[in-house]
Amino acid sequence: MFQLKITPTAIVLAATLGLAGLAQAAGNEPIQPIKPAKVANPALVELGKKLYFDPRLSMSGFISCNSCHNLSMGGTDNIKTSIGHNWNEGPINAPTVLNSSLNVAQFWDGRAADLKAQAGGPIANPGEMASNHTLAVDVVKSIPGYVAEFKKAFGSDKVDIDGITKAIAAFEETLVTPNSRFDKWLKGDQKALSKNELEGYKLFKDSGCVACHNGPAVGGNSFQKMGVVEPYKASSAAEGRVAVTGKDADRFNFKVPTLRNVEMTYPYFHDGAANTLKEAVDTMGRIQLGKKFTDEENAKIVAFLKTLTGDQPSFKLPILPPSADATPRPQPFGKK
Amino acid sequence: MFQLKITPTAIVLAATLGLAGLAQAAGNEPIQPIKPAKVANPALVELGKKLYFDPRLSMSGFISCNSCHNLSMGGTDNIKTSIGHNWNEGPINAPTVLNSSLNVAQFWDGRAADLKAQAGGPIANPGEMASNHTLAVDVVKSIPGYVAEFKKAFGSDKVDIDGITKAIAAFEETLVTPNSRFDKWLKGDQKALSKNELEGYKLFKDSGCVACHNGPAVGGNSFQKMGVVEPYKASSAAEGRVAVTGKDADRFNFKVPTLRNVEMTYPYFHDGAANTLKEAVDTMGRIQLGKKFTDEENAKIVAFLKTLTGDQPSFKLPILPPSADATPRPQPFGKK
Repeated sequence: MFQLKITPTAIVLAATLGLAGLAQAAGNEPIQPIKPAKVANPALVELGKKLYFDPRLSMSGFISCNSCHNLSMGGTDNIKTSIGHNWNEGPINAPTVLNSSLNVAQFWDGRAADLKAQAGGPIANPGEMASNHTLAVDVVKSIPGYVAEFKKAFGSDKVDIDGITKAIAAFEETLVTPNSRFDKWLKGDQKALSKNELEGYKLFKDSGCVACHNGPAVGGNSFQKMGVVEPYKASSAAEGRVAVTGKDADRFNFKVPTLRNVEMTYPYFHDGAANTLKEAVDTMGRIQLGKKFTDEENAKIVAFLKTLTGDQPSFKLPILPPSADATPRPQPFGKK
Repeated sequence: MFQLKITPTAIVLAATLGLAGLAQAAGNEPIQPIKPAKVANPALVELGKKLYFDPRLSMSGFISCNSCHNLSMGGTDNIKTSIGHNWNEGPINAPTVLNSSLNVAQFWDGRAADLKAQAGGPIANPGEMASNHTLAVDVVKSIPGYVAEFKKAFGSDKVDIDGITKAIAAFEETLVTPNSRFDKWLKGDQKALSKNELEGYKLFKDSGCVACHNGPAVGGNSFQKMGVVEPYKASSAAEGRVAVTGKDADRFNFKVPTLRNVEMTYPYFHDGAANTLKEAVDTMGRIQLGKKFTDEENAKIVAFLKTLTGDQPSFKLPILPPSADATPRPQPFGKK
């Protein structure tokens, strides 16, 4: 059996609602369904999609946005910390790009206000794509196919980093994942979830997970301390939000990750230390909530979490416009 | 003006046919149209497509078949020599996977008889994907989504390297590129090519390029010495076919690359030394044919070569089945 610290209100709610009641109360849930993306400028999204898949934005010609935020794999690389230029070991786990438009800010420490600001970062980071904005623009504007798409998207054939990052962000805004089984349940389909999964959701709420993992993205909307009850022994040196604000109170504060598609976004935490959902749920229970979930409880919560997998990105593999004779060539192994 | 070594037959042909005649004689051309792929086992192709895009076949979890044979970029990586595990600099330029089913054998030296035999190579090459067949099989068979697809494709849920490479090869066999403008012309559409492009094709034939670059793939069907008239100073140590046969006569014999989609498969030659088609045509003329093409001739041949770009692969980005708790994890930076 398990023990929960529950408030009197929770007891009343649990008694009143039961599991069937839970389904009917979907309108008042702390999690809301993911809405499909609205596309205002299809040409801009198409351009952004190509740029997202284009490794020519990196110095090596080998690393694209999709290398570490792989849309075949939940928008992540499924590696503890990412591989960058020259096989550099990244300092932090690559967060998923899926539903990232719902984040309060971008990167684990929130140092980019939005997706457009984020997109410029890895391109110029020496340990990631290792290019720079001047070179990236020179590459893109040398490619006739891209210049034509800039014209379609922006009404001008001027290529600059602002346009490049705007297009990538516009594409990323389409990467939402509606229609998960959980969202179907939220919308009233009581058969969408099994009894086990519903019990997992109840545990998820009653145990306090929803305090941070709430809203449409089931997270992504606040910064929280990693290690509230017990300190977290991270395998990375990242210190979180303090790097942005300079405030000591923000040390080890990280953006709460979305739990949408969490079945696909392993390994977990900012240091990628948890390989499985079981391990992640166990650690979160202990260090954030002071709870030791039983194996049965853990399995139920994991079963619920797997209902958060929504429609994955669905589009044809983009075909990139070829380089021209004048296009600067990749330098994967330094100048030769 | 230019000089050609032409045979009496060629003179007669040229006089008889002229350019308009060329179009009507398409049935006797040394190049034949690419035929669309026939798919016997769609489930096998779907499985192979996922495996082709799956970086979990590599030790790092970062490199998939598509990393170096990128289907967004003409089935190549557009880098001089490829980047492998631990940023290893590959010894040779990655040949395109497009139309590779038409090759006489696989790899530049033909050391693999077919696509199935080829697919097993990079997985276990320490400088490429750096995994091994045992580990690759352990990874794939631990993933329930893959086991289900093996069942559909093979009628059995047994996962082995034979099945993995068979599926990848079946997918690769679909990667043909029909409907190029040149093929439309071959099939009788006289408006498919411009006068300039047709003149380029005539030069391509009359100069002797077709001696090696012929057949549906415009190459891929023989091994030839690199540097017939003048020696080729390669920037790589690769010695070609001799590595397979042990015969000294095969030194610097390489498989003739296909010229299909050549506009997209830069840089050129087994060492990737030529960045542009202009440079490649110039070098080939000199070292293989003893010809110095004028700028005008070169430009015409390049214009013809760009008509060989056919329909690129057209399918939805595959979504990969997630790893299970028991799936062996990637080791990008060694055991930790």
